[in-house]
Amino acid sequence: MLPFGLACVAVGYGLKVLVDSRSGGPKVNPDIRKGEAKVVDTVDIEDIGKKGVFCRCWRSAKFPYCDGSHNKFNDCAGDNTGPLIITKKDE
Amino acid sequence: MLPFGLACVAVGYGLKVLVDSRSGGPKVNPDIRKGEAKVVDTVDIEDIGKKGVFCRCWRSAKFPYCDGSHNKFNDCAGDNTGPLIITKKDE
Ligand code: FES
Ligand code: FES
Repeated sequence: MLPFGLACVAVGYGLKVLVDSRSGGPKVNPDIRKGEAKVVDTVDIEDIGKKGVFCRCWRSAKFPYCDGSHNKFNDCAGDNTGPLIITKKDE
Repeated sequence: MLPFGLACVAVGYGLKVLVDSRSGGPKVNPDIRKGEAKVVDTVDIEDIGKKGVFCRCWRSAKFPYCDGSHNKFNDCAGDNTGPLIITKKDE
C-alpha cells in the first residue's frame, strides 16, 4: 500500500510538471497591456530630459517608466531585475 | 485501491504547486548576469545615435540591446513582451 501510494504521489507531481511545461512556461509580463500582441514603446530622446528610468520587470504602475516595483518583485521571486537608465551627460 | 491512488496523485500534484509557490514564483530573468544583485544598465543618450532598441524580455544575446529573441519567447510562453525603442527625431 505504501509503495503504491508513493508512486501515485510521484505521478501527481510529475503531472503538474508536465502541465506547466505544456503551458509554455512562466510569463515575463503577467498584466501589462495584454490586449496588444507585442508591447513596444517608442520614446523620443527629446522627451527624456536629463535622465529617464525605464521598467524591465513589467511590474511598474508607471510602465514604461520604472517606479521601483522591481525591488519588491525581486524579493518575492528571488530575481535580480532592474531598470534601464538613459542619461544625458553634462556638457 | 483506486480512490487511494487518486488521492495520492492529488497530493503529489498539490505538493508541486506548494513547492512552486514557496520558491517565490517564476522569475523574469532566468539567466542574465545572475552574479549581480540587480541588473541596472545606464546608457548615455550620445551613444544611442538615431535609434536604440532595448530588451525587456531578458532573452537577448545582446542584452541590454534587443536582438529579436522576444518573438520566440512570446510564442513559447504565450506572452507579449517587446522592446523599448529610443529614437531621435529628424531635425
Ligand atoms: S519597476 Fe520595473 S524595473 Fe523598476
Ligand atoms: S530580445 Fe528581449 S525585447 Fe527583444
